[in-house]
Amino acid sequence: MNYPHAVDLNCDMGESFGAYSLGHDEAILPFITSANIACGYHAGDPAVMKRTVRLALQHGVAIGAHPGLPDLVGFGRRDMAISPEEAYDMTVYQLGALAAFVRAEGGTVHHIKPHGALYNMAAVNPALAEALAEAVYRVQPEACLYGLAGSALISAGQKLGLSVAHEVFADRTYQPNGTLTPRRQPNALISDPAAAIAQVVRMVKEGRVRALSGEDVAIQADTVCIHGDGAHALEFAQQIRARLQQEGIAVRAQHQTTA
Amino acid sequence: MNYPHAVDLNCDMGESFGAYSLGHDEAILPFITSANIACGYHAGDPAVMKRTVRLALQHGVAIGAHPGLPDLVGFGRRDMAISPEEAYDMTVYQLGALAAFVRAEGGTVHHIKPHGALYNMAAVNPALAEALAEAVYRVQPEACLYGLAGSALISAGQKLGLSVAHEVFADRTYQPNGTLTPRRQPNALISDPAAAIAQVVRMVKEGRVRALSGEDVAIQADTVCIHGDGAHALEFAQQIRARLQQEGIAVRAQHQTTA
Amino acid sequence: MNYPHAVDLNCDMGESFGAYSLGHDEAILPFITSANIACGYHAGDPAVMKRTVRLALQHGVAIGAHPGLPDLVGFGRRDMAISPEEAYDMTVYQLGALAAFVRAEGGTVHHIKPHGALYNMAAVNPALAEALAEAVYRVQPEACLYGLAGSALISAGQKLGLSVAHEVFADRTYQPNGTLTPRRQPNALISDPAAAIAQVVRMVKEGRVRALSGEDVAIQADTVCIHGDGAHALEFAQQIRARLQQEGIAVRAQHQTTA
Amino acid sequence: MNYPHAVDLNCDMGESFGAYSLGHDEAILPFITSANIACGYHAGDPAVMKRTVRLALQHGVAIGAHPGLPDLVGFGRRDMAISPEEAYDMTVYQLGALAAFVRAEGGTVHHIKPHGALYNMAAVNPALAEALAEAVYRVQPEACLYGLAGSALISAGQKLGLSVAHEVFADRTYQPNGTLTPRRQPNALISDPAAAIAQVVRMVKEGRVRALSGEDVAIQADTVCIHGDGAHALEFAQQIRARLQQEGIAVRAQHQTTA
Repeated sequence: MNYPHAVDLNCDMGESFGAYSLGHDEAILPFITSANIACGYHAGDPAVMKRTVRLALQHGVAIGAHPGLPDLVGFGRRDMAISPEEAYDMTVYQLGALAAFVRAEGGTVHHIKPHGALYNMAAVNPALAEALAEAVYRVQPEACLYGLAGSALISAGQKLGLSVAHEVFADRTYQPNGTLTPRRQPNALISDPAAAIAQVVRMVKEGRVRALSGEDVAIQADTVCIHGDGAHALEFAQQIRARLQQEGIAVRAQHQTTA
Repeated sequence: MNYPHAVDLNCDMGESFGAYSLGHDEAILPFITSANIACGYHAGDPAVMKRTVRLALQHGVAIGAHPGLPDLVGFGRRDMAISPEEAYDMTVYQLGALAAFVRAEGGTVHHIKPHGALYNMAAVNPALAEALAEAVYRVQPEACLYGLAGSALISAGQKLGLSVAHEVFADRTYQPNGTLTPRRQPNALISDPAAAIAQVVRMVKEGRVRALSGEDVAIQADTVCIHGDGAHALEFAQQIRARLQQEGIAVRAQHQTTA
Repeated sequence: MNYPHAVDLNCDMGESFGAYSLGHDEAILPFITSANIACGYHAGDPAVMKRTVRLALQHGVAIGAHPGLPDLVGFGRRDMAISPEEAYDMTVYQLGALAAFVRAEGGTVHHIKPHGALYNMAAVNPALAEALAEAVYRVQPEACLYGLAGSALISAGQKLGLSVAHEVFADRTYQPNGTLTPRRQPNALISDPAAAIAQVVRMVKEGRVRALSGEDVAIQADTVCIHGDGAHALEFAQQIRARLQQEGIAVRAQHQTTA
Repeated sequence: MNYPHAVDLNCDMGESFGAYSLGHDEAILPFITSANIACGYHAGDPAVMKRTVRLALQHGVAIGAHPGLPDLVGFGRRDMAISPEEAYDMTVYQLGALAAFVRAEGGTVHHIKPHGALYNMAAVNPALAEALAEAVYRVQPEACLYGLAGSALISAGQKLGLSVAHEVFADRTYQPNGTLTPRRQPNALISDPAAAIAQVVRMVKEGRVRALSGEDVAIQADTVCIHGDGAHALEFAQQIRARLQQEGIAVRAQHQTTA
């Protein structure tokens, strides 16, 4: 069958650490198509990385590195005033560490998606974005760079000729300029699952999203961020996957074909 | 020219961290043939790793990963009761991180040598040794595994078909069973540089070392550990290199030919 | 009412870290009389410490410092070859950090109980035990030192004139010499709650425990270790507390009187 | 003798870590009157803290806690988007840890001065400043709070009734509003030692500093920051101390009388 539309469902994984367990990786893997695996800076440890890589391979899910800021206690969510060179260095380090586990298990690194504050900073800071893209280019040039749709990170990847994936969010509202409404603002979140899913379907099929202001904004939706924790994470993953398939939208990681 | 004998001179490198500087990497690189680069657990950080990889490449010195225990404050020198699986995991992680910097600079990982307590534990603990060797085998099977001459680590590497290098020490005395005299014992160290160098020359040429007991012990000397810090480190590196060449011993990393 | 017998029920607390949640502190606090609060080395972080100190004060539970080895990923459970001086240093550090939160909330540090591998090593290694006791003596001399009943840690505390509490375990079996049966041996654990509670009652009332060998061993039971996680932790805490009171045994922290 | 003017000379200390040595603490202690001792977050470890507290006591130098951001690899110099509550928590933690070493050695904590990015952020961010001051107030209310002269941190301390010390810099130029010229601007630094010392003498005696713009600005100089590393640190400390005494300015920590 030939799908006119396709989209990837990605989810952060491997965020447990030592004695601490986080997320529902095993339950959510059947519903997603790419897994962003934490690399030990904001979350994850070598044992968790190995386990998560194995799980992803068992489920045929594309594996990505999910590098973060060196801030375990803050879960990589606090902005840090790092230089572009420091961003490059920590990305190379984490990407390499994850790649080794993937290689040890006979897989390949499909993509890279920065985590939390690193993701947000790289979305708006071109110098950081270029440093991140350069790290991917020099270490894993065949990997796809995931970034906020239309962001500086995507541009930086394109400049270097990397494969990129524009990421969209089901449960977040958008501004007229195509950026996410900041979380601290009212109406930043879409709490109704049906509305969230409808937003994604429209983004994939029409390449547009209705901004909070009411106007339509062009957006490219290559991959959708699926949350792996929270009470309804699993249920939502199931629903969005089912609905996308009903809409005739292929759910698959980029450059990978569904069976 | 055809050398009847050859030996590698290896030195720990890249052990600075953040604002902290350690060692004299740049000064000692001209005299050694392989560099063991710390990977961020017992020492080193991503910026230091990148810098050190670049330096080693500039000097044409073979690059090795130097993974250690997760004990920065103890510099990886304190034994920890880790399981073989934990040893495997932390070796894969660190090896991958270093390999990414090497790849980013266009080099290759030539070898791996565990650090400090991890090195010592793997020399005598077969299960840990096998876990370490397995990590190399699955991630970097073409890399050479450096271990204490005749140790469990060497055996573990050989069992998996890895290239191995028996490491000897110039300034340490040996026991009748071929192991090092523990540091806490008197006569553990050879303080006279001439005697230290003579011991190495004999190990390389004759495959024997005179144990403290007076008897000769068979030993294989593929690589000599050169210390990178201390007041006389640089001077000693110069002297041993000069003397080895006078003796007609090729100084080079394994599987690499001198120009 | 005058109780002929009394015992303290202690539980490890504050072992969450950053985004990671562990244990059921709030649920279990009503049933215990002293809380051992992690100090940031093996678990816990400053925010968790503050929160846990506040919770303990609200429940009128005696507060103790629970220092561990600097091994977050291993949860402080892996032996490390630390020197007595390093044990002293890390105990002073963690004790001080916890004491500051207690002071900020208007409480007092009632006791100190080392965690995991540090607890086990200090039970059998007199030099480590003395270093730990010395740290308490110099920083918080009025605090009570909790250690394995009859262990080297208790002896070290007594030598310095510290108040000490012999700790016993409900769900562990004992050896003829009064030590715990190592976990790796069969029969190390008592899985029947009734048997576990009966063992404690006898230890408190008679000062004796039946060893695995069948013979009775003298034991002093000042405080009982209650587990804070696991499926049945809460239920067991309720049961043992109820039973002790039925037996006419006062449940209270040392040097504190029940209302 | 009655000094009409007095000033404190403070210096950051105890910034070594594990195998890493930094600064010249022992050499500089004879010339300063208060030591800011790192607490393990941006630098320092328990062994270093103990050693540095002992050294400061031997030299009769007032001891202060020097808490920093949890960023060892960045030496606490990179801004992090921490909340005021996180600032409070990490300050309580570090202050308590240092206080324990001081108590163990029979001394008292004289002051607290935040480090690097924490210092800079607290100078301009009132909410962070208040959180820091609150930590001091609740844990060590008799301690003096050191902050940039005229900054939000000083105001926050004063609001809580804390003793405060306005800190000035010898080798930095000032703006018309009394703040430091940012380092990235030209003319931010005063490289001539004589000019630097003259600036301090005038700040102490006249309460004024000549801004870069040429106009005079009122400034309160209770304590002068002396650098502990760099090629000329020791020489400069000697010179400024000698010159201050020639000018009839008492060199001493606040609330402490010189012998």
